[in-house]
Amino acid sequence: MRSSRLVDLRAELARRGLDGFIIPRADEHLGEYVPPGAERLAWLTGFTGSAGLAVVLATRAALFTDGRYVLQAAAQSDPALWEQRHVTEQPAPAWIVESATQGARIGYDPWLMSEETLQRFVDAGIAMVATETNPLDAVWTDRPPPPVAPATPHPLAFAGRGSDHKREDIAAILRAAKQDAAVLTDPASIAWLLNIRGADVPFTPFALGFAIVRADASVALFMDPRKLPEETRTWIGNSVSVQPPADLPAALSGFAGKQVRVDPANSPVWFAQTLRATGATVAAAMDPTLLPKASKNGTEQQGAREVHRRDAVAVVRFLHWLTGAAGRETEMSAAAHLLSLREALPGFRGESFSAISAAGEHGAIMHYRVSPETDRPIRPNELYLIDSGAQFPEGTTDVTRTVWTGPGTPPEELRDRFTRVLKGHIAIATLRFPRGVGGAHIDGFARHALWQSGLDYDHGTGHGVGSYLSVHEGPVSLSRLAKPVPLAPGMLLSNEPGFYAPGEFGIRLENLVLVQPADLPGAGKPFLAFETITLAPFDRRMIARALLTPAEVAWLDAYHSRVLAEVGPLLDTESRDWLTSVCGKLEE
Amino acid sequence: MRSSRLVDLRAELARRGLDGFIIPRADEHLGEYVPPGAERLAWLTGFTGSAGLAVVLATRAALFTDGRYVLQAAAQSDPALWEQRHVTEQPAPAWIVESATQGARIGYDPWLMSEETLQRFVDAGIAMVATETNPLDAVWTDRPPPPVAPATPHPLAFAGRGSDHKREDIAAILRAAKQDAAVLTDPASIAWLLNIRGADVPFTPFALGFAIVRADASVALFMDPRKLPEETRTWIGNSVSVQPPADLPAALSGFAGKQVRVDPANSPVWFAQTLRATGATVAAAMDPTLLPKASKNGTEQQGAREVHRRDAVAVVRFLHWLTGAAGRETEMSAAAHLLSLREALPGFRGESFSAISAAGEHGAIMHYRVSPETDRPIRPNELYLIDSGAQFPEGTTDVTRTVWTGPGTPPEELRDRFTRVLKGHIAIATLRFPRGVGGAHIDGFARHALWQSGLDYDHGTGHGVGSYLSVHEGPVSLSRLAKPVPLAPGMLLSNEPGFYAPGEFGIRLENLVLVQPADLPGAGKPFLAFETITLAPFDRRMIARALLTPAEVAWLDAYHSRVLAEVGPLLDTESRDWLTSVCGKLEE
Repeated sequence: MRSSRLVDLRAELARRGLDGFIIPRADEHLGEYVPPGAERLAWLTGFTGSAGLAVVLATRAALFTDGRYVLQAAAQSDPALWEQRHVTEQPAPAWIVESATQGARIGYDPWLMSEETLQRFVDAGIAMVATETNPLDAVWTDRPPPPVAPATPHPLAFAGRGSDHKREDIAAILRAAKQDAAVLTDPASIAWLLNIRGADVPFTPFALGFAIVRADASVALFMDPRKLPEETRTWIGNSVSVQPPADLPAALSGFAGKQVRVDPANSPVWFAQTLRATGATVAAAMDPTLLPKASKNGTEQQGAREVHRRDAVAVVRFLHWLTGAAGRETEMSAAAHLLSLREALPGFRGESFSAISAAGEHGAIMHYRVSPETDRPIRPNELYLIDSGAQFPEGTTDVTRTVWTGPGTPPEELRDRFTRVLKGHIAIATLRFPRGVGGAHIDGFARHALWQSGLDYDHGTGHGVGSYLSVHEGPVSLSRLAKPVPLAPGMLLSNEPGFYAPGEFGIRLENLVLVQPADLPGAGKPFLAFETITLAPFDRRMIARALLTPAEVAWLDAYHSRVLAEVGPLLDTESRDWLTSVCGKLEE
Repeated sequence: MRSSRLVDLRAELARRGLDGFIIPRADEHLGEYVPPGAERLAWLTGFTGSAGLAVVLATRAALFTDGRYVLQAAAQSDPALWEQRHVTEQPAPAWIVESATQGARIGYDPWLMSEETLQRFVDAGIAMVATETNPLDAVWTDRPPPPVAPATPHPLAFAGRGSDHKREDIAAILRAAKQDAAVLTDPASIAWLLNIRGADVPFTPFALGFAIVRADASVALFMDPRKLPEETRTWIGNSVSVQPPADLPAALSGFAGKQVRVDPANSPVWFAQTLRATGATVAAAMDPTLLPKASKNGTEQQGAREVHRRDAVAVVRFLHWLTGAAGRETEMSAAAHLLSLREALPGFRGESFSAISAAGEHGAIMHYRVSPETDRPIRPNELYLIDSGAQFPEGTTDVTRTVWTGPGTPPEELRDRFTRVLKGHIAIATLRFPRGVGGAHIDGFARHALWQSGLDYDHGTGHGVGSYLSVHEGPVSLSRLAKPVPLAPGMLLSNEPGFYAPGEFGIRLENLVLVQPADLPGAGKPFLAFETITLAPFDRRMIARALLTPAEVAWLDAYHSRVLAEVGPLLDTESRDWLTSVCGKLEE
């Protein structure tokens, strides 16, 4: 019974002299995918979405979710126990100020909240109390233990740069900033730095752990030793010491009087608090591995191109199969079929996220995840949206196509919307821009054709993508909310404008793109452009040619002939014939 | 002798136990135009530019300027005394760290530096010491006294909203933020709030002073009483107390225990420091008048349209006159002629900035200010750029045109560049965008046509403009560096893309635009667009029609017929005939 869980938690809070407690959907790495033992929010409230926050007071409790999860949170949580709130429209700090008594002591687990998030509560005047141990863990008696999947070497043939060189690169960054060390709390940062991968959480192949990298390029890795087999210990070498995570407090106490860099947005505030308490100076700055990791080296870029060709075989075969799916298949069976096609690909290590297989009105739910409860047939004459990706040792893929199920002709309105989304996609694909420009400055190009008709979409245009790592990787994105990080050569991003008519249909067209130096003779300064690496046809039946400029038609025709030339030879005859038939020039 | 000034200042610093001192080009309001007594940087270094900073150490001294002033600073300052530095490439804090001894005590005048600027020095580890009185003032014995131009009422017919209502609007903002008062240090904020204008500095019609606005809508104005004649005192009413600026410390001491809002970017840090010392809590937040002031009310919008029509008479007559100027006139005589045409306009109260009259290669100097030393003839067959504006009680204008002096045909390269700048101008003029979008998100549209050729310009696309106030008004702008302030109806901005070939030519095309709700039937959320209010022809001889889309040609033709229809009837026959001849449709 979930109500007894809430009762138990409140009793525990009372025992500890707390008037309230904050339960974010987070683990100690503040990542997107978390192990079962970190699903505290789901255990307490029933809500299983990938982002959210609960606040428990003595007599009231509220669940805060963002727009995409409002319906799901309402369906999964008990309205008698949980008030529903929209996390940006009615933020948690304001709700606490309204709902708690003046001066109420509100607890939080400093391992599950960044310094920036904590500051928002403090700024609201709330008396925030860090807990030594998580009170919820005291009542969640059968909480699953942490995962212990083995970490494995990520060979140089895929990584492209040795860990010793990477450690020296980061050490140079620290020395230039006059910092003695940096705390790494994102397992993806550690995976990149040490050229290791793991399997502790779904979809992202890293091993959970923490690290301290010092200005002399040595690293202290805090990871359950059971996760480090002999081969991996040898691989990471002698400059990397290994200790259990329980040794972290003792290790941090060695930094008294030193400058230690901690990411205020992405690291648990526990680190900054503990370092300050030991007499260290905390330099609040971005995780130093984020920028080098975001800019893929030549080997990683080649790997990305290669796995996109490989992955295209499954995607094209799926799109071909889909031509006969309407009336016979469902969202779930389609997702399963795509997965089975990917499983046949050499080197396939799993999906990079749970595929979004959305027919008709489900396409308008941007983060739709099909389940037996929501599964529905793919019907004739509607739009079907498939957003999926894969992990290979050479790289990570992420691709979205939206197709008309036929056999009729699509309505004009849908073709208009689809074409405007495509125009935005092409605008990014063909854009040239000077170095220094960030994602916030070019996001609008993907929306221009929609904006001119009073249309828009409520998500960013693109996110960073890892190399056999997180499919959502910081720090760059194409979004109005992008961090002020200039785009730089080698960065891998998605280009995925969309349009959504709630209750009716959704459209999204996504390729991955690599930032490259632009070849512009005579340019007075360095310019950049995007190299599209995803290879899959766009549904030409959905394109209103009259809305395209000659240059846009030329881009599309050239893209389709490239898809055919690169993917065609990898296909069986039947799929190749189909691909040939859909990759012709756009008709006049 | 300037060297003796530096010697005197160093002696004064030594007397005060300071190892160095920072001299920004700033007055106590941190504004763009300052009175003569605030020209400390010019007095000490000889450099008269509108932005810069000097640092004086015991044996070294450096002058920091931005790109536009590098040449001027080198010409005006003595290289034996002053090292030249680029303010962003070799910032002052880093120079001090390199040049001063460890632990050196560096003085600064807290009246001449914002909290954010101070923080950059503190973050660099410099021991910053606030001076009680400015040591430079102790050695500048004949420093001009502060100006005492009278403040005058700004009637409701121009202001559009009574000061009592404005004060209540600001008080409501403070109450919502639980702040007891706000400090206003920008004279433009006070001019707007109290509906008064002044004449203390060139170009911007405000009266220097400070104010404290309280959550009960009362205001304490700190201004030399000699500047407030009886009529103005009556006009500002009983809810506004008047005290001399010397009373500020005593007034601030009354806020112990209160929340007082101070702008960390635009107010002297003296205010935050003094408030904290008296026990007040400083809320670091934007001057609360900035957003309401930026969004012009209906009366101000009508005034803006009206003065742009009026100002167009002078601009069009000038452009007509210019057709015979090449070979006969100079940059200075042209600027003087334009001023004389404006002086004939009803209600003309002066230029809104010093006109940029730039022929040929001078056009590439973005902030060129012609002087007897730099004056040059306007020659045949070159580009001439004129950027100018005027102050009227109904509003402020700012317009730039670039014209070919003829009689020959312009080279293809120039027409290509001109047309790309024009495409950027039209892109902004025709853009529609949802509410929530800020200037950083749309600046790129003005650059797209240049970017695609590897070209760009090194300034923002647009700045806010006041209503019979500053021609450069915050907080909005169209720029990658724009503050994160969404564009909102009524905001008045410039739309001025450009292109500059150093040593050869410059192009800039500037109209002012008002943000307006966009009429987009069926739009799912509020959309905005720009209403162009400046009326002056673009030089059609410079346009490469093949580079324009049909929609761009249609915009240009419609704009020119509007210019003719609105301005033609206000002109003498000769100028009207000329305007008719240049406002026809673009030829095929």
